[in-house]
Amino acid sequence: MKFIMLLAAAGSLFLNQAKWAAAEAKLSEATQECIECHKIVHPGIVADWQRSRHAQVTPGTALKVTGLGLKVSNPSVPENLRETAVGCAECHTRRPKEHADTFDHNGHEIHIVVSPGDCRTCHVQEAEQYSKNIMAHAYKNLAGNKVYNDLENAILGEIQRKGGKIAIQPAHAATRAETCYYCHGTQLKVTGKETRDTELAGALDFPKIDGWPNQGVGRVNLDGTLGSCAACHTRHQFSIETARKPYTCKECHVGPDVPAFKVYEASKHGNLFSTHNKDWEFKSVPWTVGKDFTAPTCAACHVSLLVNTEGEVVAQRSHQMNDRLPWRLLGLVYAHPHPIEPDTTIIRNKNGQPLPTDLDGGVAAKYLIGKDAMSQRRRTLQAVCLSCHGTAWVDGQWARFENTIRETNAKTLSATRIMKEIWASGLAAGFEQKANPFDEGIERRWADTWLIYANTIRFASAMGCGGDYGVFSDGRYQLNRAIMDLHDWLELRKQMQLSKKP
Amino acid sequence: MKFIMLLAAAGSLFLNQAKWAAAEAKLSEATQECIECHKIVHPGIVADWQRSRHAQVTPGTALKVTGLGLKVSNPSVPENLRETAVGCAECHTRRPKEHADTFDHNGHEIHIVVSPGDCRTCHVQEAEQYSKNIMAHAYKNLAGNKVYNDLENAILGEIQRKGGKIAIQPAHAATRAETCYYCHGTQLKVTGKETRDTELAGALDFPKIDGWPNQGVGRVNLDGTLGSCAACHTRHQFSIETARKPYTCKECHVGPDVPAFKVYEASKHGNLFSTHNKDWEFKSVPWTVGKDFTAPTCAACHVSLLVNTEGEVVAQRSHQMNDRLPWRLLGLVYAHPHPIEPDTTIIRNKNGQPLPTDLDGGVAAKYLIGKDAMSQRRRTLQAVCLSCHGTAWVDGQWARFENTIRETNAKTLSATRIMKEIWASGLAAGFEQKANPFDEGIERRWADTWLIYANTIRFASAMGCGGDYGVFSDGRYQLNRAIMDLHDWLELRKQMQLSKKP
Amino acid sequence: MKFIMLLAAAGSLFLNQAKWAAAEAKLSEATQECIECHKIVHPGIVADWQRSRHAQVTPGTALKVTGLGLKVSNPSVPENLRETAVGCAECHTRRPKEHADTFDHNGHEIHIVVSPGDCRTCHVQEAEQYSKNIMAHAYKNLAGNKVYNDLENAILGEIQRKGGKIAIQPAHAATRAETCYYCHGTQLKVTGKETRDTELAGALDFPKIDGWPNQGVGRVNLDGTLGSCAACHTRHQFSIETARKPYTCKECHVGPDVPAFKVYEASKHGNLFSTHNKDWEFKSVPWTVGKDFTAPTCAACHVSLLVNTEGEVVAQRSHQMNDRLPWRLLGLVYAHPHPIEPDTTIIRNKNGQPLPTDLDGGVAAKYLIGKDAMSQRRRTLQAVCLSCHGTAWVDGQWARFENTIRETNAKTLSATRIMKEIWASGLAAGFEQKANPFDEGIERRWADTWLIYANTIRFASAMGCGGDYGVFSDGRYQLNRAIMDLHDWLELRKQMQLSKKP
Repeated sequence: MKFIMLLAAAGSLFLNQAKWAAAEAKLSEATQECIECHKIVHPGIVADWQRSRHAQVTPGTALKVTGLGLKVSNPSVPENLRETAVGCAECHTRRPKEHADTFDHNGHEIHIVVSPGDCRTCHVQEAEQYSKNIMAHAYKNLAGNKVYNDLENAILGEIQRKGGKIAIQPAHAATRAETCYYCHGTQLKVTGKETRDTELAGALDFPKIDGWPNQGVGRVNLDGTLGSCAACHTRHQFSIETARKPYTCKECHVGPDVPAFKVYEASKHGNLFSTHNKDWEFKSVPWTVGKDFTAPTCAACHVSLLVNTEGEVVAQRSHQMNDRLPWRLLGLVYAHPHPIEPDTTIIRNKNGQPLPTDLDGGVAAKYLIGKDAMSQRRRTLQAVCLSCHGTAWVDGQWARFENTIRETNAKTLSATRIMKEIWASGLAAGFEQKANPFDEGIERRWADTWLIYANTIRFASAMGCGGDYGVFSDGRYQLNRAIMDLHDWLELRKQMQLSKKP
Repeated sequence: MKFIMLLAAAGSLFLNQAKWAAAEAKLSEATQECIECHKIVHPGIVADWQRSRHAQVTPGTALKVTGLGLKVSNPSVPENLRETAVGCAECHTRRPKEHADTFDHNGHEIHIVVSPGDCRTCHVQEAEQYSKNIMAHAYKNLAGNKVYNDLENAILGEIQRKGGKIAIQPAHAATRAETCYYCHGTQLKVTGKETRDTELAGALDFPKIDGWPNQGVGRVNLDGTLGSCAACHTRHQFSIETARKPYTCKECHVGPDVPAFKVYEASKHGNLFSTHNKDWEFKSVPWTVGKDFTAPTCAACHVSLLVNTEGEVVAQRSHQMNDRLPWRLLGLVYAHPHPIEPDTTIIRNKNGQPLPTDLDGGVAAKYLIGKDAMSQRRRTLQAVCLSCHGTAWVDGQWARFENTIRETNAKTLSATRIMKEIWASGLAAGFEQKANPFDEGIERRWADTWLIYANTIRFASAMGCGGDYGVFSDGRYQLNRAIMDLHDWLELRKQMQLSKKP
Repeated sequence: MKFIMLLAAAGSLFLNQAKWAAAEAKLSEATQECIECHKIVHPGIVADWQRSRHAQVTPGTALKVTGLGLKVSNPSVPENLRETAVGCAECHTRRPKEHADTFDHNGHEIHIVVSPGDCRTCHVQEAEQYSKNIMAHAYKNLAGNKVYNDLENAILGEIQRKGGKIAIQPAHAATRAETCYYCHGTQLKVTGKETRDTELAGALDFPKIDGWPNQGVGRVNLDGTLGSCAACHTRHQFSIETARKPYTCKECHVGPDVPAFKVYEASKHGNLFSTHNKDWEFKSVPWTVGKDFTAPTCAACHVSLLVNTEGEVVAQRSHQMNDRLPWRLLGLVYAHPHPIEPDTTIIRNKNGQPLPTDLDGGVAAKYLIGKDAMSQRRRTLQAVCLSCHGTAWVDGQWARFENTIRETNAKTLSATRIMKEIWASGLAAGFEQKANPFDEGIERRWADTWLIYANTIRFASAMGCGGDYGVFSDGRYQLNRAIMDLHDWLELRKQMQLSKKP
């Protein structure tokens, strides 16, 4: 017994050391220099990076992997980067001429903001795909859309009652950076330099960057590229486990506007994830259905390279995530087929508005994918479902899901018709009155119907196959109720107007 | 050190293999045949099942267990099932004559929907108990109740403003299946056959089943039995760990209408579960308080067979879950003693409505358990509490809990009185006007008081001993506020009526 | 292979036994006596305690630790307590003369409620700090404040519509104990004795305690001390792991009024915690950034003793948790600098109200910390941030955070101005009318703006750096909307008054 205790204790010691292993790969001289100071001034960053694959495997070694396990998709990684770990210097001194924030730091040309333009040095295919992902364009898609700007102001702007009216001022830059653009990404801009006294190296110059910090999915970087890989592949461990667990997606998709995580967590899939993920393997590439995991996470359905237990591909990896999505569930103001181009500011509905649907529910078809593309994306997505579910199960669920899209769109139309009657009655001022259609209380009740409730119902259907949450938690209970409230509000004021008449 | 590293590595390899072990028990020929194809077409199902106890232990072996650890409660499992694993064929070809969806599939008489009628082959006691559980009757209890039908329509139905009035159409079948009946269970019905081209076996016939997919607790199966064991014992791993963790209950009890999980998660018990469950043992039968777990999950209080560290029984296993529940917290519209019969459609209140309470708070006593039964159930439940808490603690908490039942019922009465005044004033149309009492905005504000807020407060008290959530998250803050709102709505309209009078 | 299997199996057996190890430290005779019965009547408590450090390490051994790892901060632990485990008797018979609930129990002078006055026997520094923590005073700070009493009554009180008016009665003691005072702590009081028949020892006397059970942070104990260490260091395992995980803080800080956990969980830090905490070390003292954990929990930023990987102190342990907090985010009714004294009932604003701010947003500066103290606390807190983030990142975030404080205060002012106009118009009765300013529907809509929405926005900014939750989940979307609603409510009634005039 004592012998076994010793072994167990020693084994456990070994495992603990392995967890906290020093980098095994050789470091470049530059990176060694970085670490010397930064392990003292930012110990958390250095320690986190030491756990990363970047610290442990050189690109040269990684490139030797053949088949589906290959992680470095650029076969032409520069020779000088192949034999050392991917350390501080490898990323933060990459392409110095292209980064507006490059500055001299102890003799090195450093930039603060590492971008997809840097990451593509090794991960070219992922960077290429992601650039076509609608998420990469999230900054402009919001900031460059007049209708959304109105909504943004109505939500974020300074607000006061003045002279018997509500007056709203545009939101502060600091506010915008902390809210919509936390997820969408900010536009970064170097505005000057500042000198800071540092403990280890005395006075040092640093660039001042507007919009910093940020790690939004559509960040406009200082080299002109779009997005932040760190949004999902969180620095500086860059662990695929992080990206594959639903907590990462939750950062932006938790609701109540886009409650993907919320409905997932309450679904059968979410139950199995919560219960069993401790026993799953989140680091295998490719990712084997049934062996590595027994219920999908967000990544399994939308991003990851999946194989079955025979090693056959179930789904190709894609960082252009809408590749597997026929529908865009987010109601603007109705759910609609996915846009063709990731830049959605080019879209015009029949009334010339930059919206994928018009207020009566018609789609701006020219800018949205057609039936064939939708069918193909559906099949790509359903291949994942069919790994664990029979055809009748999957078809039955899909029929319900598309019924739900039709139905929530119909209810949004019911709500919008009442809203239009309110505008027409002069009880509020909207699009036709050239006013902000989102800045009055009753307009916001209308916005609830499509921005909160219809979205929730559709996400609950898509990701949770329905269930209690889609009914009672900002769902169907609330959607019908909101339509009743719109009606009630209008009726009361109509009766008042009648009673005023002589 | 190297030797130890080798051992640790080898041990770790061994453990990983064990996790992903091939079935150890012998397979029947039929099951072998199933797996040959299905490991390719549905690898996730097969892999999941291979992790299950069903794949690893034959009923014959399981029956040899003596004492409290016995899991197979039917001593008379048919001989021909005893010596092979419980595989695909054992369940999906069981009792072929009794299942309306039985069809010929490569020479086997297969049915798609496995039911409690099949599971009782081994688990007769659990099936028997569950058939008396109110949950088994969840389909009919909802679909067969006229008052609930009105509520269902008002929540799910198509809705429009037409001619200055709100018009609601009954909900689609697809909508109902995805919402209320996702949890309550659908009524399954074979409507025909379809031929599908399959990759491995060419054209094959399959039954078409209305209401499929579904795994609701009260599903009406194709053999006439009620419920789906897979609602909690999720296919195809059927892991007791899944059923014992609260994430399973969460699928239906997350709120805001029945927020059991939400309040549990924020309670001291939930804190301990979240913090320490990684170190608990979820598979032991019986389940030992203090040794296997140090705070209860839903299953510990409501279902599982518990023993103390001396091996003495603390609570008997029961799949008739209300066995430990004196009160039914769900307000319909008031909280009330538990119904005697699981079929609640037989209940009539003093006004002849199919409700356990009347609108003034009186209980339909004839259909509900009496004081003695309530006391006995309270004692059964409190035996669990007393494993870790002193008598004064438990009694003090129970007194608060019953105070909360009285109080929330009193507040529901306050709200209902205002609602009745609104109906009496002709400002809305309810029961007495033979109208749907849930289809106007103000009626829904009333419904909030008992369906959302009073329920939340009671669940918070019962499962969390109160706390912040029961106050601010759809709780007391909102309940009193809703009553103020009902009053405000009525007063405004009364004043308008007064001002109209000459 | 067989040899290795044997080793792995044996090792695993050993680990399981270690988990459930019997106490290693010697027990006092008194404690042995306790356990003899209580392992049968309360097996969960005994088993839980056996896992605790209290059961395994004597104070004498603990005192031998030198340096930052020292856990027993009183060097003068009485000699008679040094050589036995900290068992039942050591705590429950400590200072018998000082506890009003001391009673004779099988020949021992036992008290039921262990208090910080007992814990300080070993943990004097923590008890001292905690007594200066605002949380220790949470009972009186709420119960002794007339304005808060009004709010409490309006939320908890019995409510009815009587004679065309809303009438509210003060809340039951049982209700208060289960709600506000569940977290704030109850005032305990011995009200008599009762005799109970016990299974093992026949008839025994026990004290009856009003306000029991409770483990709130500001509990007024029967020895006059304040607080319950068990609020965070949950009995009877007293695991530092429990206190360091965010689930403990969640019990009271989950929202929507103080949604610290909610926004943390959806933040990048929360994502990393949820994803990786299984690999973190929660028991090390001191707690090493980057090595033991790679993202902060609540405790890391607000309480724990942190060191960097070189062993240098990043943050000193403090149980006076506001030590690292310049701002008090909780709006009363505006966010404000932290109070100087933990007893906030002494505060008076310029109108003589016991509030840290007045209704126009002015601060009761005399009672709140000044700029220097705020700067120093900010630096103490930011030292934690700087372990993993650069200066520009931290400064940028802080600037946004303080912008958010200013902005939410400005919006609270906008809402309050409308509320004051409503009061002035006689449409509701508030402070100036000597009425409860929280007991009418529209007053509660006003309360939403600062008690729910502004708080949520500030917590989201402070703990999540903003993000989606701070916008859509009881955040900015709802805050501007509530101000529009206040305006809408007032305008409608103003128009009605106009139309009534001849």
